[in-house]
Amino acid sequence: MNIPDKVINRLTMYHFILDDIREDEKYISSTKFANLLNIDNSQVRKDLKYIDNQDGYRGKCRVGYEVLKLKNKIEECLGFKKTKDVFIVGAGNLGSALAKYDSFQDYGLNVLAMFDKDPKKIGTVINGKEVFDISRVGNLAQRLGVETAILTVPKEYAQGAANYLAGSGIKYIWNFTTCILDVPKDVKVWNENLIGSFLQFTNGNKEK
Amino acid sequence: MNIPDKVINRLTMYHFILDDIREDEKYISSTKFANLLNIDNSQVRKDLKYIDNQDGYRGKCRVGYEVLKLKNKIEECLGFKKTKDVFIVGAGNLGSALAKYDSFQDYGLNVLAMFDKDPKKIGTVINGKEVFDISRVGNLAQRLGVETAILTVPKEYAQGAANYLAGSGIKYIWNFTTCILDVPKDVKVWNENLIGSFLQFTNGNKEK
Repeated sequence: MNIPDKVINRLTMYHFILDDIREDEKYISSTKFANLLNIDNSQVRKDLKYIDNQDGYRGKCRVGYEVLKLKNKIEECLGFKKTKDVFIVGAGNLGSALAKYDSFQDYGLNVLAMFDKDPKKIGTVINGKEVFDISRVGNLAQRLGVETAILTVPKEYAQGAANYLAGSGIKYIWNFTTCILDVPKDVKVWNENLIGSFLQFTNGNKEK
Repeated sequence: MNIPDKVINRLTMYHFILDDIREDEKYISSTKFANLLNIDNSQVRKDLKYIDNQDGYRGKCRVGYEVLKLKNKIEECLGFKKTKDVFIVGAGNLGSALAKYDSFQDYGLNVLAMFDKDPKKIGTVINGKEVFDISRVGNLAQRLGVETAILTVPKEYAQGAANYLAGSGIKYIWNFTTCILDVPKDVKVWNENLIGSFLQFTNGNKEK
C-alpha cells in the first residue's frame, strides 16, 4: 500500500502515543491525538483510514479507538514486526549514539554491525555491536543478507564511503551526512536532513 | 514568506550540493540537482522560484544558475546567517553527538549550553559546551535569551523535562525522543521522528 510520507510519519507518532497510554485506558479519541500533535481532528481521522478499518480499530462514536487494536494495526501496517537488519557505517559520535538508540530495536530496526576505517575503533564493541574494518562490509553484507546502511561518517568521507558501499552490494543508504551522494541508479538514498528539519521548525512551519 | 516544509528541506539540500561544488564550476544546472536528489527537473525549478529570482540566480538558458549567487540567496532566504542559540537538554549519547555535530554551526545553529540532572555529567564540557544542572535552565535561558531546547533525554523523562522547560521560559522544543509531549499552547514542539523517517524510507517512499 502506498501511504504518503507525512502519513507514515504521523502514524508512527500515533503509535508513540498509544505506547505511552496508561494500561487502564482502553479507548482513545482522535481529539487526544490531534491535541498532542497540534493538528486537526479531521487529519487524524483521515490518517487512520489508511489503516484497514474493520471491527474495533474503527473509531466508535463517543468511545474512540480501541488502544490495543489500533496499536497492533499500525504495527502491522508499517511493518514494525518485520525486523530490518542494517549496518552503521561510521563509528563516530553520531554513529555510536544511533547504535545505542534503543528505540530503533522497538520498531524493528536491528543494527547488526558497525564499520569504520579507524584502527582505534575497529574491534571495539558499541552497545553489543562490533565495529569492523570497512573493507569487510561487502563480505558481511552478502553473508548476512544486509542491504541497508546508515551513513554517519564525516562529510568529507561520505561520497567515498557511498561509492564503496554501492560497490559492496548495499542498496539502501540512510544518509545522516550533509553530503548529497552521487550513487548508481540501483542504490536508493534517504537523506536525514537535520539541518533542513531545524530550518523547517524555525521558519515557523510547526505542523509535522 | 511561507515556504512549504518539503521545499525548505530541498532548498537546504541544494545548498549542501552548492557547498560541495568545485571552485572552478561557476554554474550549475537544475538537472544536476535533480539527478543527485532523484527528483524531477521541474520540481527543482519550482523550488528555486521561492528564492526571489532576479539577476544571476535565475537560471539561464544552457548555462544554469550562478553557484555563488544561488548559494547566498538560499542562505538569506532560510536565515542561515541569523544565528539561533539553543540549549541541549540531556547530555547522553544523542545529546553529546548533536553537541559535537559541527554542521549545525555552519548553518547558524549555535549550541550555547547543555543540561542534565546526572551529577556525573554536570560540570563536564562537551565540544566546548558546558553541562549545567537542569535546575539552572530557567535562569540561563532568561539571561542568555534562549527560547529553544533540543530534547534528548531518555523517553521516560521526556514529559517531565518538557514540563520543566515550559515552566522555565522555553518556547520551542526540538524533540528527539519517542515521547509525544503534552505542552502548554504557547510552547511549540517539532518532533524529530527518526523512526518515522526510517519507516518512510523502508516503505518505499524514496523521494524526500
